[in-house]
Amino acid sequence: MAPSAITPPHGVQQTSELTTAAVARKIAETAPELISNGVKTEMAPRPLDASKLKFTKTTSPMSVPQPGDPIIMTASQCTDHMITAVWKASTGWADPELRPYGNLSLAPTASVLHYATECFEGMKMYRGFDGKLRLFRPDANCKRMLVSSTRISLPAFDPAELEKLIKAMIAVDGPKWLPKPGTFLYLRPTMIGSGGALGVATPKEATLFVIATFMPPLDAPTGMRLLASTNGVRAWPGGFGYAKVGANYGPSLMANGEARARGYDQVLWLLNGTVTEAGASNFFVVWRSKEGKVQLVTAPLDGKIILDGVTRRSILQLARERLTSGQSGLESLEIVERNFTMDDLVDAAKDGRIIEAFAAGTAYFVCPVAAINYKDEDLDIPMARGNSGDYAHLVKSWLTNIMYGKEDHEWGVVVPEVEDK
Amino acid sequence: MAPSAITPPHGVQQTSELTTAAVARKIAETAPELISNGVKTEMAPRPLDASKLKFTKTTSPMSVPQPGDPIIMTASQCTDHMITAVWKASTGWADPELRPYGNLSLAPTASVLHYATECFEGMKMYRGFDGKLRLFRPDANCKRMLVSSTRISLPAFDPAELEKLIKAMIAVDGPKWLPKPGTFLYLRPTMIGSGGALGVATPKEATLFVIATFMPPLDAPTGMRLLASTNGVRAWPGGFGYAKVGANYGPSLMANGEARARGYDQVLWLLNGTVTEAGASNFFVVWRSKEGKVQLVTAPLDGKIILDGVTRRSILQLARERLTSGQSGLESLEIVERNFTMDDLVDAAKDGRIIEAFAAGTAYFVCPVAAINYKDEDLDIPMARGNSGDYAHLVKSWLTNIMYGKEDHEWGVVVPEVEDK
Repeated sequence: MAPSAITPPHGVQQTSELTTAAVARKIAETAPELISNGVKTEMAPRPLDASKLKFTKTTSPMSVPQPGDPIIMTASQCTDHMITAVWKASTGWADPELRPYGNLSLAPTASVLHYATECFEGMKMYRGFDGKLRLFRPDANCKRMLVSSTRISLPAFDPAELEKLIKAMIAVDGPKWLPKPGTFLYLRPTMIGSGGALGVATPKEATLFVIATFMPPLDAPTGMRLLASTNGVRAWPGGFGYAKVGANYGPSLMANGEARARGYDQVLWLLNGTVTEAGASNFFVVWRSKEGKVQLVTAPLDGKIILDGVTRRSILQLARERLTSGQSGLESLEIVERNFTMDDLVDAAKDGRIIEAFAAGTAYFVCPVAAINYKDEDLDIPMARGNSGDYAHLVKSWLTNIMYGKEDHEWGVVVPEVEDK
Repeated sequence: MAPSAITPPHGVQQTSELTTAAVARKIAETAPELISNGVKTEMAPRPLDASKLKFTKTTSPMSVPQPGDPIIMTASQCTDHMITAVWKASTGWADPELRPYGNLSLAPTASVLHYATECFEGMKMYRGFDGKLRLFRPDANCKRMLVSSTRISLPAFDPAELEKLIKAMIAVDGPKWLPKPGTFLYLRPTMIGSGGALGVATPKEATLFVIATFMPPLDAPTGMRLLASTNGVRAWPGGFGYAKVGANYGPSLMANGEARARGYDQVLWLLNGTVTEAGASNFFVVWRSKEGKVQLVTAPLDGKIILDGVTRRSILQLARERLTSGQSGLESLEIVERNFTMDDLVDAAKDGRIIEAFAAGTAYFVCPVAAINYKDEDLDIPMARGNSGDYAHLVKSWLTNIMYGKEDHEWGVVVPEVEDK
């Protein structure tokens, strides 16, 4: 999360960083309501307003795939409904709609098809063991969506309104599509530059939509195998690695495919030797430092290179609360957000100081790492429990308990559902 | 152009650069016909085949906007027809179609909307002063489209087939939509990941389309004013700056908008101080070196940072042929493709050694640069003819003559047209 993105810009400052200045301008122009001490004009565009949501229920409901149905593997089976909201530069946000799931009709000149004016969020909705429907820290995803949309030249909006729209949709589709305790569906809020105009320019029209889909299991039962990229680079200082924009994903697919062809699960992305992300997840290592301290280490946010993962942030917070003073039965950890290099990992591995490593994100959740290939050599990463390290196992169980309502926690947000008539 | 992209991969080598290896694999798998000495299998997917083009003419022809019609400024008015061709991983390319221009219907889960699996080309069709319809070096654009599509995980194809499809479309729409000598329309071949599937994975379906549109004039009558980006970066080593993929454009829009808000036309993109591109165009400077040589200097291709512009390449070739031995009446140039820094430009400006500068690309053509702002200081760039330097003026006139048939040249490719019945 970059809270600075919704900090009052106090007018648009002439900072030397063009994109940062432009993001402040974007928020001032497209969502002046986010600037508490800004000057609101009479001509302010209409804000995104969930209270105006129009409901059009489907008249041809789809059938819910049963476990094992091959369509689940395609990650394309969505639920009966979707949310859409259209923004125009001239008028702001139109009333959002809940409507039957269906294709989008886009002009071949639409900005998103040419210039990657697109951003998204990855979330899950969970059916708790207590029968309740929950989201996990939806406020964090909605705030990050604002960071991403303004970075990619799409309009600003109040994240709280997006959160209300997401809840409205799953309130309708939750009862039918996610009845079974202990299961989840994947949610995908997305925004695209939908106006037709071929000039390389800020989109004058955008469409926000929210869909829910079945997602195949992304576990790596024997641990994730990573292939370090020694030449290809995912993100760069002054770029956009911190934003969840399409431009971070498409360009990484070739290297990811090559990693799979060589027998690995994901690319471990390096930047000048520094470890950044694992595939599209954050990367954590637990090691014993040369000074003998047991540390949980992950890349920092301050270079704006890596995604500010909600799972990453939650793991760091839980580890700080529960793993730093021996309460867990495991050796206490020092929690460290800092840059570290692949050479640091190799040294630690050669010294036998690596305790475990894992990738963390919404899609892969907390996924133990079994091996990292670097310069044609496999580093074996210990997994104390056979298929996971102890710390990853513990953190994963805590998060699971919050998501499915076994632990009452402010991060597990219960969503009231709509009874079908 | 990176001819290496269509060089036989001799099997897929285990090179350390994952993306390069993956591109070779992609070509082997999706367009084995491009590998002259590769092993063709019985199961090879169907290649893109322009000879199979199906024609479905429009039954509701649109009216052609007249000069001054405001729709021209929107860059969204297309011609009556478009080309589409759908590729599937399982079967290869279906028969391409020429069909009435209209919206695309895409699943909300389509890869292009989330992961920027998209690439395009920018070309123009010219109505010559001799009445003939021409393209400018279409083979170069079609080959670059292959470089881009494989970089972004979309399928390979024979560039010659794409060129035939483009010609087939403009043969139909040229007579009605581009009747007036000395005018042009903009052409946009595009490929998108069109299959619906939310996993971060190589698209299993893609759609190639070609549209033609009116484009407002992009001249800067008093010269282009550039604002150097001291922090933000367009592209980086190990990235994808050389490919014409959407992911290079959307992320640049915020900085470009900020430049406009500050009274400049485009961003001059730097990478660690090195000058790379001007907006979405290549950048050239003519200066007198410290040793007294008059040089035409532009950034090199070998770092894969900048786009291999067709206009850039053409200017370099014409300059080598016509400006290196005094034939033109102007002082002879030394042609230099090398890295140079913003500090080099500042030094040259302070010494009075800059002769002129210009941006070059299909959209902006050859556009003289009047000023560059760097660290809050404007460098004035000379324009010997008032609104252009001498070299830019001469090169632009040569290119114009080739495009509009005043000079018979192999780069100006005449397209036979279809008589309307």
